[in-house]
Formats: sequence, C-alpha cells, structure tokens
Amino acid sequence: MNKITEKLQMDHLIQEALREDISSEDVTTNSVMKEAVTGEVELICKQDGIIAGLHVFQRVFELLDEGTKAQFFCEDGDAVKSGQLLGKVTGDIRVLLSGERVALNYLQRMSGIATYTRSVADLLTGSRTKLLDTRKTTPNMRIFEKYSVRIGGGYNHRYNLSDGVLLKDNHIGAAGSVAKAVQMAKEYAPFVRKIEVEVENLEMVQEAVDAGADIIMLDNMSAGEMKEAIRIIDGRAETECSGNVTKENINRLASLGVDYISSGALTHSAPILDISMKNLHAV
Amino acid sequence: MNKITEKLQMDHLIQEALREDISSEDVTTNSVMKEAVTGEVELICKQDGIIAGLHVFQRVFELLDEGTKAQFFCEDGDAVKSGQLLGKVTGDIRVLLSGERVALNYLQRMSGIATYTRSVADLLTGSRTKLLDTRKTTPNMRIFEKYSVRIGGGYNHRYNLSDGVLLKDNHIGAAGSVAKAVQMAKEYAPFVRKIEVEVENLEMVQEAVDAGADIIMLDNMSAGEMKEAIRIIDGRAETECSGNVTKENINRLASLGVDYISSGALTHSAPILDISMKNLHAV
Amino acid sequence: MNKITEKLQMDHLIQEALREDISSEDVTTNSVMKEAVTGEVELICKQDGIIAGLHVFQRVFELLDEGTKAQFFCEDGDAVKSGQLLGKVTGDIRVLLSGERVALNYLQRMSGIATYTRSVADLLTGSRTKLLDTRKTTPNMRIFEKYSVRIGGGYNHRYNLSDGVLLKDNHIGAAGSVAKAVQMAKEYAPFVRKIEVEVENLEMVQEAVDAGADIIMLDNMSAGEMKEAIRIIDGRAETECSGNVTKENINRLASLGVDYISSGALTHSAPILDISMKNLHAV
Amino acid sequence: MNKITEKLQMDHLIQEALREDISSEDVTTNSVMKEAVTGEVELICKQDGIIAGLHVFQRVFELLDEGTKAQFFCEDGDAVKSGQLLGKVTGDIRVLLSGERVALNYLQRMSGIATYTRSVADLLTGSRTKLLDTRKTTPNMRIFEKYSVRIGGGYNHRYNLSDGVLLKDNHIGAAGSVAKAVQMAKEYAPFVRKIEVEVENLEMVQEAVDAGADIIMLDNMSAGEMKEAIRIIDGRAETECSGNVTKENINRLASLGVDYISSGALTHSAPILDISMKNLHAV
Amino acid sequence: MNKITEKLQMDHLIQEALREDISSEDVTTNSVMKEAVTGEVELICKQDGIIAGLHVFQRVFELLDEGTKAQFFCEDGDAVKSGQLLGKVTGDIRVLLSGERVALNYLQRMSGIATYTRSVADLLTGSRTKLLDTRKTTPNMRIFEKYSVRIGGGYNHRYNLSDGVLLKDNHIGAAGSVAKAVQMAKEYAPFVRKIEVEVENLEMVQEAVDAGADIIMLDNMSAGEMKEAIRIIDGRAETECSGNVTKENINRLASLGVDYISSGALTHSAPILDISMKNLHAV
Amino acid sequence: MNKITEKLQMDHLIQEALREDISSEDVTTNSVMKEAVTGEVELICKQDGIIAGLHVFQRVFELLDEGTKAQFFCEDGDAVKSGQLLGKVTGDIRVLLSGERVALNYLQRMSGIATYTRSVADLLTGSRTKLLDTRKTTPNMRIFEKYSVRIGGGYNHRYNLSDGVLLKDNHIGAAGSVAKAVQMAKEYAPFVRKIEVEVENLEMVQEAVDAGADIIMLDNMSAGEMKEAIRIIDGRAETECSGNVTKENINRLASLGVDYISSGALTHSAPILDISMKNLHAV
Repeated sequence: MNKITEKLQMDHLIQEALREDISSEDVTTNSVMKEAVTGEVELICKQDGIIAGLHVFQRVFELLDEGTKAQFFCEDGDAVKSGQLLGKVTGDIRVLLSGERVALNYLQRMSGIATYTRSVADLLTGSRTKLLDTRKTTPNMRIFEKYSVRIGGGYNHRYNLSDGVLLKDNHIGAAGSVAKAVQMAKEYAPFVRKIEVEVENLEMVQEAVDAGADIIMLDNMSAGEMKEAIRIIDGRAETECSGNVTKENINRLASLGVDYISSGALTHSAPILDISMKNLHAV
Repeated sequence: MNKITEKLQMDHLIQEALREDISSEDVTTNSVMKEAVTGEVELICKQDGIIAGLHVFQRVFELLDEGTKAQFFCEDGDAVKSGQLLGKVTGDIRVLLSGERVALNYLQRMSGIATYTRSVADLLTGSRTKLLDTRKTTPNMRIFEKYSVRIGGGYNHRYNLSDGVLLKDNHIGAAGSVAKAVQMAKEYAPFVRKIEVEVENLEMVQEAVDAGADIIMLDNMSAGEMKEAIRIIDGRAETECSGNVTKENINRLASLGVDYISSGALTHSAPILDISMKNLHAV
Repeated sequence: MNKITEKLQMDHLIQEALREDISSEDVTTNSVMKEAVTGEVELICKQDGIIAGLHVFQRVFELLDEGTKAQFFCEDGDAVKSGQLLGKVTGDIRVLLSGERVALNYLQRMSGIATYTRSVADLLTGSRTKLLDTRKTTPNMRIFEKYSVRIGGGYNHRYNLSDGVLLKDNHIGAAGSVAKAVQMAKEYAPFVRKIEVEVENLEMVQEAVDAGADIIMLDNMSAGEMKEAIRIIDGRAETECSGNVTKENINRLASLGVDYISSGALTHSAPILDISMKNLHAV
Repeated sequence: MNKITEKLQMDHLIQEALREDISSEDVTTNSVMKEAVTGEVELICKQDGIIAGLHVFQRVFELLDEGTKAQFFCEDGDAVKSGQLLGKVTGDIRVLLSGERVALNYLQRMSGIATYTRSVADLLTGSRTKLLDTRKTTPNMRIFEKYSVRIGGGYNHRYNLSDGVLLKDNHIGAAGSVAKAVQMAKEYAPFVRKIEVEVENLEMVQEAVDAGADIIMLDNMSAGEMKEAIRIIDGRAETECSGNVTKENINRLASLGVDYISSGALTHSAPILDISMKNLHAV
Repeated sequence: MNKITEKLQMDHLIQEALREDISSEDVTTNSVMKEAVTGEVELICKQDGIIAGLHVFQRVFELLDEGTKAQFFCEDGDAVKSGQLLGKVTGDIRVLLSGERVALNYLQRMSGIATYTRSVADLLTGSRTKLLDTRKTTPNMRIFEKYSVRIGGGYNHRYNLSDGVLLKDNHIGAAGSVAKAVQMAKEYAPFVRKIEVEVENLEMVQEAVDAGADIIMLDNMSAGEMKEAIRIIDGRAETECSGNVTKENINRLASLGVDYISSGALTHSAPILDISMKNLHAV
Repeated sequence: MNKITEKLQMDHLIQEALREDISSEDVTTNSVMKEAVTGEVELICKQDGIIAGLHVFQRVFELLDEGTKAQFFCEDGDAVKSGQLLGKVTGDIRVLLSGERVALNYLQRMSGIATYTRSVADLLTGSRTKLLDTRKTTPNMRIFEKYSVRIGGGYNHRYNLSDGVLLKDNHIGAAGSVAKAVQMAKEYAPFVRKIEVEVENLEMVQEAVDAGADIIMLDNMSAGEMKEAIRIIDGRAETECSGNVTKENINRLASLGVDYISSGALTHSAPILDISMKNLHAV
C-alpha cells in the first residue's frame, strides 16, 4: 500500500468516514481542552491475530492534523499477541481523542479479515491451491478489505465488474451457449482480460474448455463431479472452486487439485480483531 | 428510513459503492447483452434471520436505472426463513445483473446486524434494560448499521462525536476532576445534549452524580461494584453498562437494573445473513 | 476552533467559496503580475466591535498558497477599535490580492455576528439567563455562524435537526398529545438527546412537565403566562423563551427567571463589522 | 432563474445546506411520524417587503422529495404585505417539516436583500444612475444574492474575479502606471472584458481616460472632485462611484451624473424579511 | 453504452464540463429570453465520417433539463455524409442554446476518433490483425474515447493501470529479469489478469515465452525481427506490435501475422468531425 | 499559471484524471516494486514544437506524492527541438512510473495546441490582427487548453457562457431585432461585459453599429463583404472574423484589417507534440 493508493483511493473515503463521525465538532473534547497539548498514546492488541491496516490507522490521524506522528513496532502481516504494544501515536491530544474511533474501526476490521484469512489459508499449506476473495466486500471498504486478504495470505480475485470477465448462467443464457458467450466476451472485452466461465455440470465444463475459456469456475459441484471436471480440463484452463467452502471441507476441495478456492466469508463475515488505544498522556 | 434520509445520507454512499464495483463498465454483461431486455429476478433468503435494508437494496437498482421496480413480500424487521421469497425486482436485465452484488452486499450486512441484534435483544426481554449500539461501526456504513440495530430491536447510542457528550478518563484528566469536566461540558456543549460520564470506580460514581451528570457509564466494573453504583446513583442519572458484554453474561448485567447495555459487537462482528437473487428471466 | 474542525467542516466550504469568486483565474492580478513577489498587508478594523474568524480569514489564504503566513495582534473574542491594526498577512502578493475579498467576507460577517451577540448578551449580565442562537443561519455558513455566537458570549442551541429533539405543534398533533409525543421521542431518539417541547399555553406546560420533557420552550407567551409557566415547571425542566425577543424586552424576559432566551436575529440579521486590508507592499 | 442555473449552480449548494441541517436524520419528525401523510402548509409573509427566491424555496423541498409541489400566488419581485398568503406547499408532511428551516433561511435572506435593494434603488428613480452590487456577498451565497439584487431593482457588477477586470492601486503599482496597467490588461485579459480602473484623484482620472479605460471607478472622492472627474471623463468612459454610499448621500451622488453607484451593504448588511410557514395540516 | 455507464461514469464528467462552460449563467441567452419557449433544432453533419456519441450529446441536454427530447435518424457507428440530417432536439430554446457547445464538443471529438479509427481499421480488412487503442487518451475523456474507438472498429487495450499488467523495461529491471517479473506479477496481480511483457529484442522474446507471458508486445522492432519473434512465440502467447505505426506501414505490419497493432494516434491526434446544430425555431 | 489556478481549477481535474487511470492500484508496478526506491527520469522531446504545460506535468507527480521533484531546462512557450532534454523528475520510482502516462497526456496535448497556435499566429506577424481561440475545447480541458493557446501566441476569447455576451441569430430573433437584442443585453448583463453581435450581412452590420455593439463578429462573409463591413464599422466597434479560417486564407483575412480572427481548430484539432520520459534509473 504505497502513497499513490493512499492519495487516490483511500484519503477521500477516510475523510468521508471522519465526517460521518464528526459532523460539526467533537463536542466532548472541545469542552475540556481549549488548547493544543502534545500527547502520546499506545496502540495495544487485545487478541492474538494478524495485524493489517497500520498505515490506514496512521492516515486517519494525519488527515485530521498533518503534525501527528505514528511509530510502529510491527508491520502489516505480522502475527501479534494479546497485550502486545503495536505502536505509539504522538500529536495534539485532541486529535488523538477525536480520531481514535475511526482509526480503530479501520484497523480492527482490516486485522480481523487478515486474521481470518490467515486461519483459512493455513489450511491450504502444502497444497497447490490458492485462497481467493470475492466481490462480497463491505460497500466502500473494498480497497481496504482486498488488501487485508492479501496480507492474510489470500489472493485477490477480480477487483470489480470492470476488470474481470466472469460469465454466469444468465450471461450464457443471453448469449445462447457457452461457446457463444466466450466468443462474444473475447470480441468485446479488452483482450488483456482472461475469460472465466461459471459451470454447473460436466457438459458445460467440456463446452467451456472447447470454447477456450481461460478459467473455469466449478460452482456447487460435488467432489466427484469436481474431480471429473478437473480431469476433463486437463490443464487447458485454470480452475476455481466456489460455493459452500468451509474450514471443514476446504482441505478436501484442495486435495482435488483445483487451482483456486474462493470464499466470500473472508470479507463478509470475519469478526474484528480487538485492538485499543491506551495510556494517553501529555508529553 | 424515509426519502430524506435516502437522498441526503445514503444516495452518495451507494453511488460511491457502485463506482467501486463498476469503474468503467460491467464488461461481462455488456459483452453478451447489447440491448435492453426486461427481466425479473427473485430475492430469496438462504438463512433464517431478521431482514433489514430492503429499501437500500432497491435503491441500488434505482440509482443505476430509475426504471427498475421492486416488489417486496415482507418488510424490514420481519423474521424470514431460509428459502423464503422476499421479493422481486423487475427491469433491464443488464441493470439487474450489474447491480446484484452491491445490492446484496448492503442487504446481507444490514440483515446480519439486525439478526444478531435481535438475538441479543431477546435475551433482555422482560427486563427494564435496553440494548445499545456504539460508534464501533464500519466506516461509511454508520447510517445503514445504526438503522439495522433499531430494526433488530436495539437502540442507538449517540450517532457520532458531535451529537453526544461522553466524558472519558482523558477528558476528566484534562479538566482536572469529574466535577470540572461535567461543568465545562455543560458550559460548552449545546444545552440540548445530556452529559454522560464514564466511571471506573465507586468514588467516581459519587462524583459524577454530585456533578449532575445525566448518564453514567459503568465501564468494566464487577457485578458487585455495579450493583453498588446503581444504589448510589439511585435514579438521579441514567446508567449504562459497557465492556465485556457477552450473550452469556448479559442477563446477569440486566438483572442489576442498569438502564442500558451497550455492545460494539452488534455492528463490528455480526456475520452476514445469506440472501441471494435467483431465477432471473426475461418477461 | 481547532485543526479538526478546520479540515473536516471548513476547508471544503472555503474552497467552494474561492471557486465561486475565481471561476477561471483572477484576470486583473494575472494581467499585471507575472511573477511571485512577496508582500505584506495589514488587517485593519474600521469599526468598533468584537473580532471573530481570524483563523478562517487566515485559512482562505493558506488554501490558495500554503506558503502564506498570518500574524495576529488580537484573538477571537477581543473587543477591537476602529483603526486598530489586527494583524498582518505575508505571502505572494497575487495571493494576497486574489484572496482578499473571500477572506474579508468571512471575517466581516463572523465579526458582525459576534459583535451583535455581545451587545445582546451584555444585556443579560447579572441574570441567570443565557442567550441562545437558532437554526436561522445562512445556508452553508452554520459552522462559522454558531462559532461566532459563542465568541460573542452566546450559547448554541442544537446544531441541526439530527442532534436535538424539539417537538412542535405539528409533531404533537401527529403523535396525538404532548405525552405521547414525548414518549415516542424517548423511544426513538438516541437516549443522549434531551427532549424539548414547544408549548403555547399553560395546559401544555403542565402536560409537558408531567410527560418528563427535559426542556420546555415557551413560545410567544405573555409575561404573565410565562411567569406562571415557570412556576408550574418549578425546576423540573429547563425553560427556553423564544419569539419576539428584542433588545428592548429581553431584560424583562430575563427577569422572569427563564433559563434560556433564543434569538434568530443573532445570525440572520446582524450587520457586518467593517474590516479592511490596507497598505499592501512588497517586502 | 431558469432550470439550468438551478441544476448547475444551485442544487449542489442547497444539498450541502440540507446536509448541514440534517447530518443523520430529522430525529424529531421521525420519532412521531413513521409513515408518509400528505399535508399542505401555507407560506405567509410577516413583514412588508419584496419577495425573492420562491423557486429556491421550492427547490429545497423538491431535493428532499421530488413529489413535493408548490403553488405561489405572487412572483419574485412583487411587493408583499405582512399577513399576505404567498403560496402553498403540498407533500409528505415529514418533508414539509424537515425542509422548512433551510427553505425559509434562503427565502428570508434573498427577500431581505431584494427589499433593501428596492428601498435604495427607489432613491435613484428619475436619475440616470444605476445601483450596483459588489463582491461583498456571503460565501457560497453569491448566485442567490446577486439574483436578489436584480430582483430588487439593482444591477450586477462583475460576478467574480474571473469575469471582470478592475485595476486597483496595487495593480497599478505593480504595472508602474495607470497607462501601463490598462495596456497590460488589454493584452492579457480576454478582449470581451471591459477594463475598469479605480482612481483616487483627478490626475489618475486623466491618466485612465487617456489610457482608454472603459470604466472609471471614483473611489472615496469628495463631491467636488467627483464632479470635476465626470467633466474630465466627458463620456469617454463609464463612471462608477464607490465607497461611503449611504441612503442619506446617494441622491447627491446621483445628481452628479455618475453612471453607477455600487454598494456592498446590499448584500452584506440587509436584514432578513420575516416569512413563515403556517397552518400545516393533513389533506 | 447503457444507462449504467451513463449514470456512473459519464454524468458527473458532463456536469463538470457544463459548469466549466456556465460558471454562473448563460448571460446572453438569459438577456433576451426571459421565459421558456419550446423549440426544435436540427443536428447536421458537415463532413463525411463515422458518427459516435449521440447519447452523450443527448445527455448534455437532459442534464440541463430532463424535459429535453432527442430523436436520431442514425446510430453510433453509421457512416454519415456532409449535409446529412442526423437528428433533432426539442426543448426549452434556452436549454438548446446553452447546451449546444458542450454537446457538440463531445460529439465532434468522439466522432472524430471513430472516423479516424475506421480509416485505420479498414486498412486491416482481410488480415487477422486487430487494431488497439492505448492509454494515450485525453484526461477525463477516456470513457468517451475508448468507446469511440470501438465504434470505429478498433478494440480496447487495458482500460487503465489497474485492470491490466504490462511489464516494461523498468519493471523488468526492478524484478531482475523477464522471468522474475512475470513470476512476481503472477503472484501479486489478481489471477484474472493476463500478463503482458514489452520486449525489445529476440532474446527477451524467448525469455518472455519461457516465463509464460500471456501477451508479448514487440516494441519498435524491425520487420525482420518481428517476423522472427512471431516464429519464436509460435502461438504460445498473443502478440502486439506497438510504436511507429502509421497508415503507410500498418499493412506491412499486419502481413507479419501479429495479433494486435496498437496506436496512440487514434485518441491523441484524431481531428474532430465537423457537426453543427442548425435551424433552431420555436414549435 | 500561478498556485491559485493550480489549486482551484486544476488539482481536482488532475486527480480525477489520475483516478481514471488508477481505479484501484498500478498493479504492474506494485507487483515488482514493494519498496520505495528513489529514481530519476528524463523528459525528452521527440518532435520540434512549442512546449506548454510543464507545471501541469509536474503537478501530476506531486499529487501522487508531494516528495516528487521536477527540474526543467526550458519554460512554457519555448521552442523545443526533437531530442532535446526538457527536464528531469526525481522521486519514488513507483510514482514516476504510475504518473507517467497522465503527466504526458496533459503535456503532449497542451504542447500540441501551443505548437499549432504558434504556427498560425506566425502567419499574422506584421498585421494588426490577433488570433483568438473559441469555446470549442475538449470537455474538462478548457483551463489547460486556453492557457496553451496564450502560450502559443494566441489570445483568449470569452472563457465561457457566463463571462461574455455574444448575440447570435437565435438571440436576435428572440429579441426581435439587433437593436433590441443589444439593448436587452446591456440592461441584463453585468455592465463590465462588452456586447458582441454576430452578423451575417451588411444590413446587420449597420444595425449592430447603430445599436452600440462593442464587438461585431463577421460570420462566414466573403472578402468583399467583410471589407465593406469594416468600412461601415469604421472603428466604432471591434471586429472579429470567424468561420472557414484556414492557414491558407488567414493572411488574406488579416489584410482586410479585421481586429481578431477566431479559430476553433486551435483547440479541437491540433495533433499532440510527441514527448517521452526516458532513462529512468535509481539514484
């Protein structure tokens, strides 16, 4: 996550989130602190997990006051422990207080996703199968959530509807057949896109391979069907398994030799990682 | 959720979310569907839960094409069952396909929060205690998430830093004492705000009551302390219990006679409710 | 007014105001000054009054060129005299010229409000009654105008429709009665809001007190009625007097012992305080 | 004020003003009115004056709910009387209540400016002199305020720094002389701009005429000097008188034969015209 | 170009362009037309070419006034002749006059690109080679210009830096080798992206094929080298030829059997197609 | 082009253009460069021409990362040669790579316009006639394109519909006559505007002069008519010639003594000037 992503994709969303939390002023803080006093606060982890979003956390304070400084003792992707001191933030105490909640809301959610993703990705260790996210992200959080998946050891599927082609049943229906749909997509979509087709049975698998699909998504198939599908495809397309993926069955899915397993739960149902700011004091 | 909230607080966020998902065009759909064809699709629940966000779901499609129509067979707050037909959406099939993911991302998350909130609120049935949310919401989702909490039977704490006064330890430290902090807040904050003070021990409880605090938040206290605190307060202020609230201990907390119990988990850790769009067909 | 308010609530409005005044370029200045020359200009008061908005004035120039520096010899809230040197601004002369009008438009209006507010607030000296503003502010100027009222010695009523409950006749009518309206507001509104009810006669006063209203607004009552109303309320709710408040009658109103008197004129009809920039010269 | 101005210059400002007043929701109205009920409300004048801004008033409600309808019994520029029924608005009662304050804030201020402008413009009846506004407008209100001046019988000076050339002392100083300044402006500025020069003495008047200035602004001159200046100019340029214009001396200024008199007070110090919404009832 | 693209990607750019052209009001039109009069105007082509952008043209007027109607006698992609009546627009004459220039600025530029693209694409008729655009588009015009290329018979390369991988010399240098660069991109980029590598000599061609690049861009190679490169690649990757493409040499390039030829000139140097609005009259 | 224009009119357009090119991240660069490495790149001209837009080019990089530095060896308006080193940019190599295309898209187009304008303006050397641009600019590029025209030796006509009055046939028709149209514009438009009238025959020329038009545009007249028109006008108004201006006939038009010749081709049909960034290396 470099400066460019920060400036073009994150800053305006963080500012919007800050305005959501401060629609006129932080009336509590401004009641009791009339002048700037420099303070320092500690960022402390309250659960074991994977940290993600430290720079977003920092950026929240910078957008309130560019004079705020953050120092971190770990980096995104590190496994952190309950009680661990993650970093310190120094600046106008009013800024530290007013920005705390939004900063933590980002950091906790991003770390929650990274933590959950890591726990699932670890189940695939030793297999050739990679873990993918989906477009089932929280609205206006995608740039943050897809980054967190990567930090957790997952891989990103397409970013959005514009940068990847995925032909589903309705698209195939509209085109008339799998072959026609693949053909139309190759004709229309920028040629740098791979063409992915979602299939539901072995006949469609065969059609998709013959049509030159680059990726074939095996949707809600039984283990047996999936095995046969992978045999049919025989390396001529990449394979993705989707639907009903759980921590319990993921290993069995991987053992079938599918290239990718995608899971919406990585972003839509990961609980947060509990992190807090403590020991604020003037310096 | 009336038209005004929709137009002033939701529409620009939904549009931003749509642009997040469609940065140039839906290249798949546009590959295979060159012309508008009117279609209909069903909204079907895949888990038992509480539905919330039907109008947000509908608004996503209207913002893509004002000609899209939605018809619902239930309303926000209803308990819905796995397999239940919730409604139908009719419009240009391309709009139905391109808007599906964003619409469901909102609806699933909102319903997930309502479902989880209901499950917690039900534990308080029969008590005088009300369940509150917090500011631990997803960035740029607060208007949607706080609404979902209400739909689930919870109540809203302050909306943000501007519309409620909550004096915490650092504010009290800056003011010099609980009494001074309350005094300064009464002087500075618009007089329509109640003054809430977070306390950690019984001495502070006494100070807060004496200072005329309107609400006293008992933070991370033991059951014994809390009981004593409520005795001290004796109805002269409202009481809120916060921290370490779980489904397991919430009943015991309520039995102490506290007015409000607040829980961040309602918004930061509720899993989604699984809902999908099915059976798209031309009409 | 700290950095946070500046960045979140003011900057985008100031920038919008600057674009209103410079839709392509300052064609006059750019005609005759092709290169940057550093200059200094004096800020001089041309009327006696209360100064308010110095940081907004400064911010206008910083938003045009972050290299612009301002130095002030007084601060917001000070009584200033005609002819008094208030401060100096140093920077690219083109910036000083192009920003002058917008900077003064803010400063003059804010100081005008502070000046007028002070003149009214002074009339309440010695009484227990506080002077309040209203929502009768200039569109897109509220953050500036409510701040100016505080600087002038007034207090802020609710900031907007979202952060305060004020039940008027139509709300009461819709609810069915004062009691029901108060009850519904307590149920619906975040519990950190006080409930204010506007009443027009003594019967409604009694109803409002009984219903547990936190604040009772006595609207357009005669002095006699108001006196009786305050007797009925007897400290069980705060009281606000509104409507037909003038410099002439405000003292009499205060003598009745009402807690607050609100006046729309503070923001909607205060004339500006005349201030100008003089003696620009290269340095 | 046609649809185009409304859509391009007004709508986004009105929406910003509405968000200023409703940062999450109208919590009072939503407490007591859960469903849409159609109502009607009267717009009633409470002071004699000139009405201006009826369409802005209407637009506020339309932007909250496009189904709101307004009917007016007068039009912008009409002299209205205290007690007069100006129009009616029909729509969802919640919309009528939530939009009332912002709609009136615009209408009262615009009508206040029109009223004050008319009172000054009337003093010039019979003379050849026209009354001008200035750039001393309220930030983010210029499009509304300059329109109100026209409605009141005044004329608009340049809209902003981009669409008119006005060479003041600092510009002349930078250029080296009046002649050089006029010359540089003619070379640089789009040729469709007239060149106006602000002069302070008769020598500068002569220079400005000789240099081919299109308009000469006589700034803070005595009546005698102004008379002589107009003699020197002799119709070769238009003349504008500025500074220290009051209702008391404006007639004497006009009698000197100056073409234009400009007054900042039209926009910066006009009190509002009191107007209210009354008799809301369901229909 | 469906409604979705219009609403999400075009409307805000068109509105910005309209504000660029109307910063306060259309002062000429408003001088002479105080009331709405319905009129009709003809859209007439003044040069032979390919028309593109009719819906953008129409949208300009709708964004000024949703009551404006357009009727077209041709559609995007049609060859049109000088003097041909393309369509008619009906609406408030003020809207027709005020929107004319922006509407034509879009239509003429888009049609210019379509016309030029068609003239180049026609040279490739009969070959297997497809014509591609580049990212050398006019800032804030990409959605319009890439569409126009397709209308003219060209194909779109990646839309932007986010939706396609193109490893150039500096990327390869940073990675250490072609093989490493391809490997890193496969690891990092969403797996739905093809990996394209820009090569400058035959050794790099071999490396790129071996590394599993999906597309190989032959940059500024001689015809001989290119022929040899295509032989080496032997269908294992798609090939793109870029640099120094002219109408004169494009046929020779195509004859080498390259899959794609990309040309920046399609968007950065196409002259406009002359089109005008004529015969405006009241109806 | 000073800081003010940059901040108020350019920055938001450049940011929009950057988001157009980077909708999530620069996936190629981020694949291979995980850390910031400082690099330097050369800006090299590949065609002879006039350079324009160096500060816009620089601003693109600064908006991605304020730490980026540019050094130029020429300035806007200079004639540059193919192969000439124009400047160097230093900063995070990822920023240099990610910003390259947008920066060049601006610089090449602006320099193309300056180059073409200079070639036309040079044809007028020795005559009294000045070359003007029009409103036929690329949407959302006007501030950049009109600047480039000036850099190329042209002059700017009105910036947009708001800052200049140009009465065309439809306006005259609506008003009833040339005289009435001029009269209405003088009454309505801010008095700092000159009134321009477009005429098509000698009768209208006479009418326009008599009505006191400040500028008369001779549209599509023959040389003979134009000569006669200028004789009729006799210095009482400025003259502008428009329509069918080409490099071939411009000299003949100038020889008629017209004050201004306007040409849309300056902005709508100038090809770009080829410029590139080369020799990027770490430093």
